[in-house]
Amino acid sequence: MAVNLHIPSDDAVFPVAGVEIGVTEAGIRKANRRDLTVFRLSAGSNVAGVFTRNRFCAAPVLVCQEHLAASGPIRALVINTGNANAGTGEPGMQAAQETCRALATLMQLDSKQILPFSTGVILEPLPVDRIKAGLPGALKNLSENNWVSAAHGIMTTDTLPKIHSQRINLGGQTITITGISKGAGMIRPNMATMLSYLATDAGIAQPLLNQLAKELADVSFNRITIDGDTSTNDSFIVIATGKSGLTIDSTAHPQYDALKATLAAAATDLAQKIVRDGEGATKFMTIQVEEAKTTEEALQVAYAVAHSPLVKTAFFASDPNLGRILAAIGYAGINDLDVSGVKLWLGDVLVATKGGRNPDYQEADGQRVMKEPEILVRIALGRGNVSETVYTCDFSHEYVSINADYRS
Amino acid sequence: MAVNLHIPSDDAVFPVAGVEIGVTEAGIRKANRRDLTVFRLSAGSNVAGVFTRNRFCAAPVLVCQEHLAASGPIRALVINTGNANAGTGEPGMQAAQETCRALATLMQLDSKQILPFSTGVILEPLPVDRIKAGLPGALKNLSENNWVSAAHGIMTTDTLPKIHSQRINLGGQTITITGISKGAGMIRPNMATMLSYLATDAGIAQPLLNQLAKELADVSFNRITIDGDTSTNDSFIVIATGKSGLTIDSTAHPQYDALKATLAAAATDLAQKIVRDGEGATKFMTIQVEEAKTTEEALQVAYAVAHSPLVKTAFFASDPNLGRILAAIGYAGINDLDVSGVKLWLGDVLVATKGGRNPDYQEADGQRVMKEPEILVRIALGRGNVSETVYTCDFSHEYVSINADYRS
Repeated sequence: MAVNLHIPSDDAVFPVAGVEIGVTEAGIRKANRRDLTVFRLSAGSNVAGVFTRNRFCAAPVLVCQEHLAASGPIRALVINTGNANAGTGEPGMQAAQETCRALATLMQLDSKQILPFSTGVILEPLPVDRIKAGLPGALKNLSENNWVSAAHGIMTTDTLPKIHSQRINLGGQTITITGISKGAGMIRPNMATMLSYLATDAGIAQPLLNQLAKELADVSFNRITIDGDTSTNDSFIVIATGKSGLTIDSTAHPQYDALKATLAAAATDLAQKIVRDGEGATKFMTIQVEEAKTTEEALQVAYAVAHSPLVKTAFFASDPNLGRILAAIGYAGINDLDVSGVKLWLGDVLVATKGGRNPDYQEADGQRVMKEPEILVRIALGRGNVSETVYTCDFSHEYVSINADYRS
Repeated sequence: MAVNLHIPSDDAVFPVAGVEIGVTEAGIRKANRRDLTVFRLSAGSNVAGVFTRNRFCAAPVLVCQEHLAASGPIRALVINTGNANAGTGEPGMQAAQETCRALATLMQLDSKQILPFSTGVILEPLPVDRIKAGLPGALKNLSENNWVSAAHGIMTTDTLPKIHSQRINLGGQTITITGISKGAGMIRPNMATMLSYLATDAGIAQPLLNQLAKELADVSFNRITIDGDTSTNDSFIVIATGKSGLTIDSTAHPQYDALKATLAAAATDLAQKIVRDGEGATKFMTIQVEEAKTTEEALQVAYAVAHSPLVKTAFFASDPNLGRILAAIGYAGINDLDVSGVKLWLGDVLVATKGGRNPDYQEADGQRVMKEPEILVRIALGRGNVSETVYTCDFSHEYVSINADYRS
């Protein structure tokens, strides 16, 4: 029951020159399920990544960071579902490295040119033999036209694949941007059990790409939350193959701002798609905090509201029990907040002002907005001029079912 | 479906000399429900309170703080359910004051000698006329034997009343301690939609009682969480009537330590009873964090685990999906946490060590512990020697039902 999650038709998913993808069923946790995906990147591609800050980060995250820091250019990605290879200690590190070595041998690469990714259950040993046995099958169907298949291949509790694809004209050249993401639970800023791969055939110099990946994450994957749980495995990878002929090597390049804005919109769309497919989601909520003194306090308030189970269950019920939002604002941690300066809107309806209910507020107006599948919650703090926006979903019976049954 | 929440039999609930209680049905939100409670305190009683730190704290909380700071001794409490008088701005303040004035007139007191409390829906005007109309009825049945009735009278989404009562011998004198609490949702440290009133016939000097109330809250009501939402109305009130003849005026008094320990145990029991009756609770979990460097980091980890919806749903399912606990430890915010030093036990079962799964861990052992209604989660951080314990419950379908339906 994803909320307005649209899947582009196959002919609207554009291949990115220089990115080939192979997907196979390796039986990692369950049979008859696409669970192993390989990306092959053409020579000249640059790759940058942003990863979870969870201290129990997974073995593949540590290996990715090591390989990205090494000098050899990245030429392949390998992604398995069914097992997160997290909380697996030293044997987990060996399993991630063994996966890279096996693929390196098959592709005639150095194992440091490969980035491994895992998503699924934590604390269980990675079945590395099944992954190794599946790799030849994945390599056999490498194709530039496999983005949709890859979007399926990286799903776990996702109900739908998440794909963004577009072509834009930059200075007379056609540039393609295509990306996929996965994730539906254990989602919160910095970041989530989410994986996302965003590719363009524009060329972007490595130092610039590193910086850009971080900036893209900050406006997209670092602004979504489903359940407040930060995963051990979150990874966001940006690939720039340069095959279009356009190459950007500094922020001063005349096409840089347009490319960055397009990539940011693509990353935001892929991030929002994760929320739209949030576990059990029936509503998509945008929490917009305005008039904050700092980014930090704007986000504190936005996440307090977005994480409140009471707020989330009220949205599930379409019940304008909006005092719960005021309570969340009040406990967000701004110790000198003057509540008499706070305003709260639900959509275009002013609900609270001067520390209490807006005298003109009618419950019927709140009810009307609450019934929509997409809801804007706007909070003005009356303290400054900083705004921040985060995206989240409601909390339903289905959420409990999914997470009480996920493993068993 | 409260978890091991025992209600003492009527003859095990001991009156506290100097505390009379009257309870009535005032029809504040629903008919045929005890929703208005008045305490009358004998001359010589001292009263101290600890309140929510929510910036949107309710009007009655502000009035309580003002009246406690005034010089006139507190002689009565008035508690309504059905409406929190929170998020109500200036009209809410007037409503709380009007309630005090009405009761003051009936009891021939100054309105500053009265503490008002409200619990229920936020953001709706307090029906002060119904409260005023109910007060004579509450006063008519004032009695020292009404503690059980009061425990019912302050309930909202609670399924059971919460009462603690005991007699102890201090230096040859019998001292009575009896208290009640309410709360089942919007519960988290500092504090919760919880109200608690703990009375003793020991006398405790006012400055000492003020300090003691804070210390009692810190080991009890500030160590519980159900949903991570801090309420606008939390209040914990300690009453010392002095009617027993024992009077304690400093921490050096020979009976002080024993009285404090007994009051702390009573407050902890009343706090744990709130968790045992947590909305939809089927499990009672004790999260014990050891070997932390500081109290703050121990609590950070304990609350990250206690608030994680993924952890809470796994406990609901009795599913030892324990990687979710490691993930919560990892994102708790200790940036220099060395995960190789972390140990995790479920009950007496060592689950994780050296950054990964304990090689001897058998899922059947984890499963055995998870099936119990009371579960101890022990986490050793390997960084220092500070321990902290918090109490929480699981997250069930029933939680969503209760909070999606609470108002409508």
